[in-house]
Amino acid sequence: MTTPIQGFSKLSKEEKINWIADNYTDNSEATLEILKTYWNEDSVLQKLHDEFIENTISNYYLPFGIAPNFLINNKLYAIPMAIEESSVVAAASKAAKFWLDKGGFKTKVIGTQKIGQVHFIFKGSSEKLQVFIDKIRPILINDSRAITQNMEKRGGGITSIELRDQTKKLDNYYQLHCKFETLDAMGANFINSCLEQFAATLKRESHNYELFSEDERQIDVVMSILSNYVPDCLVRAEVSCPIDDLEVEQSVSPKEFAEKMVRAVKIANVEPYRAVTHNKGIMNGIDAVVLATGNDFRAVEAGIHAYAAKDGSYRSLTHASLEDDIFKFWIEVPLALGTVGGLTSLHPLVHLALEILQKPSARELMQIVAVAGLAQNFAAIRSLVTTGIQQGHMKMHLLNILNQMSATEDEKKTLIAHFRKNAATHSAVVEALQNLRSNL
Amino acid sequence: MTTPIQGFSKLSKEEKINWIADNYTDNSEATLEILKTYWNEDSVLQKLHDEFIENTISNYYLPFGIAPNFLINNKLYAIPMAIEESSVVAAASKAAKFWLDKGGFKTKVIGTQKIGQVHFIFKGSSEKLQVFIDKIRPILINDSRAITQNMEKRGGGITSIELRDQTKKLDNYYQLHCKFETLDAMGANFINSCLEQFAATLKRESHNYELFSEDERQIDVVMSILSNYVPDCLVRAEVSCPIDDLEVEQSVSPKEFAEKMVRAVKIANVEPYRAVTHNKGIMNGIDAVVLATGNDFRAVEAGIHAYAAKDGSYRSLTHASLEDDIFKFWIEVPLALGTVGGLTSLHPLVHLALEILQKPSARELMQIVAVAGLAQNFAAIRSLVTTGIQQGHMKMHLLNILNQMSATEDEKKTLIAHFRKNAATHSAVVEALQNLRSNL
Repeated sequence: MTTPIQGFSKLSKEEKINWIADNYTDNSEATLEILKTYWNEDSVLQKLHDEFIENTISNYYLPFGIAPNFLINNKLYAIPMAIEESSVVAAASKAAKFWLDKGGFKTKVIGTQKIGQVHFIFKGSSEKLQVFIDKIRPILINDSRAITQNMEKRGGGITSIELRDQTKKLDNYYQLHCKFETLDAMGANFINSCLEQFAATLKRESHNYELFSEDERQIDVVMSILSNYVPDCLVRAEVSCPIDDLEVEQSVSPKEFAEKMVRAVKIANVEPYRAVTHNKGIMNGIDAVVLATGNDFRAVEAGIHAYAAKDGSYRSLTHASLEDDIFKFWIEVPLALGTVGGLTSLHPLVHLALEILQKPSARELMQIVAVAGLAQNFAAIRSLVTTGIQQGHMKMHLLNILNQMSATEDEKKTLIAHFRKNAATHSAVVEALQNLRSNL
Repeated sequence: MTTPIQGFSKLSKEEKINWIADNYTDNSEATLEILKTYWNEDSVLQKLHDEFIENTISNYYLPFGIAPNFLINNKLYAIPMAIEESSVVAAASKAAKFWLDKGGFKTKVIGTQKIGQVHFIFKGSSEKLQVFIDKIRPILINDSRAITQNMEKRGGGITSIELRDQTKKLDNYYQLHCKFETLDAMGANFINSCLEQFAATLKRESHNYELFSEDERQIDVVMSILSNYVPDCLVRAEVSCPIDDLEVEQSVSPKEFAEKMVRAVKIANVEPYRAVTHNKGIMNGIDAVVLATGNDFRAVEAGIHAYAAKDGSYRSLTHASLEDDIFKFWIEVPLALGTVGGLTSLHPLVHLALEILQKPSARELMQIVAVAGLAQNFAAIRSLVTTGIQQGHMKMHLLNILNQMSATEDEKKTLIAHFRKNAATHSAVVEALQNLRSNL
């Protein structure tokens, strides 16, 4: 049996790989070979990427693709996407093209407020606590001056510090619920640094507050951390056109198509089993841009899905309407993004992605990302209510499998024709190719 | 102004890049250079990666790292993680090491049921519809035989087809709510292919069903698609130990630490602003393994966050208890994963990641991924309730910024010391380095 290892993180990259290869793979040589195949020739660049995280042994490739022809507020964008799933970039491009001559996408930032909290336990009078917090608010702000001064120079900073009594949820539980404006930074480090300073000030000041009893002075800070739930850091994107312009397939009239779209969105609004998948498709578009621009997709995912569940039932993030012969389709999503700090300046491809997007502010990036989500959803529902989702998806999937099995161009042609009428599950494709080859 | 482009997808990779460079970047030469720097030398391998999606122009690097020393059900694992965020692999490794001599992680698969639905509109008697569905159920199953036979040979397939009356949610709205066992496949293609066949059979049979009125025969299928909401494809992972073994920091006693952990988890259970961030941290661990093993993180994210919101309020995915001097910490998450099909066999690094994990079945992978999430959460809460989150995070962040600014080893030393006591926001680091350099 493999034994535990001491000091793994202190080994060199080669030593780490050797240990992994020897202990967890059948063929050490082959393992080494694969991992090194993915290293960059440029050792300085490779070192940069290695140091983004700990114990890096290679580079995991996500395809970096481009979806062109996005008209957003009358400006044309080509959107970079980093994603491993086939059809996502194709669907985005198709939706962009479809809306290009119909006025494109219109977007609006509704808010940019970010949230952080100091969670603490206070055993005593909540009225006295409120008076105390009101008294120390200027001190809380003043003590964090060293952290906030640069952000303030640029027009951001702490926008409010509020006491929230949560004792109904948990005995003696209170929060400093704080709001921030972090401009073009995602702001996690800024907010967390402010909050940890607030916590220190809160403890110090409560110890010295004469009106508190001995018990009341023992404020116990549980933790200080930003929230990824940002319902007021919100952006809206929309498309609309006269129903008659909705010519998508010969088999379905524009009016029928519009009705099918609206009905599909309604279903995603009332049925959680559908809503989750509907929103998952939206996230295909959103995450691809979030990744390409060096933002944190886990933060974005958590904030968006919680927003989808905010009224007690998990619902669709997009909406559709049909009024006065106008079809309207829109999304509202919370997006806390940054275009400075973090990976944005460190990762050369992220830097390039932002350049391709015309060096957007965080507000502009919010709008682009929301559009990518809306476009993705339009394309997905369009497929679902017309040809079905499998037709487009399986074509790419089929090609991937055939490539992997080193199919010749002739074999590809035969099997693409075959699988127009048959379900191309992985095993069915493997079998069909084997049959084809054994019949020759 | 840039103009739209026709037939972008049909251009060669070089032509695509040239168009992007000319239309969306200031320096075409530099753009070309950066994109090509990330191409793989091996053109066959590069072609494979290019063809995963559409319009690929380069490879987006995610660091591929290793977290060793995970003892799961008495077996030692080194877990591959693909993630761009610093501290995630370090935190996972630290948590693995901590639990290594305390019995490690215990896991259990609770269910593996996957869901798909045919959504349709039926105007007529719901009783008659129920009789009809019961009558055609064998035909539904029989018609999909070509799709299901391979899966059935291996022990999986369709496990139930049930009519759900959803007319209270939306007029005339019904579903075929279907359950599947897809074994080691994630199953999206299998399930979607089955559902599209069900839809075809449903329409054909309803047209021919004598007991239906003319209206009732016009069943209108809105869409057929799997659900990423999989509350019964569920796995549990747990750690536990006597309280006295919880020696984590000199500054806090084991009992005090255990109480702080339990309280922090309780807060994440009752306060959505905290729960979203708490679960985001869990997803740092989960997604890193999901990505490294070629699974679809958007599907996993959507399913898990909806599960966190299932009782009407968004809550923590982990739980902690303190009973009879035993500290227990566990997670239950839905995870629909595959270890065959999709990218698992196509992407060489995914193939290697699965080899490093000892070629797990999908059930085993569910358990490993749940452990990664639990470990991540343990490490995060441990930091939050002791030193605070910033200390560990900023060290990595600081080094990244210093590397980017080509700081010398001497400069690094000075500034690491400086930022032990000061908040290392991006601008503060840049400023401090500039000051340091101008003072020389």
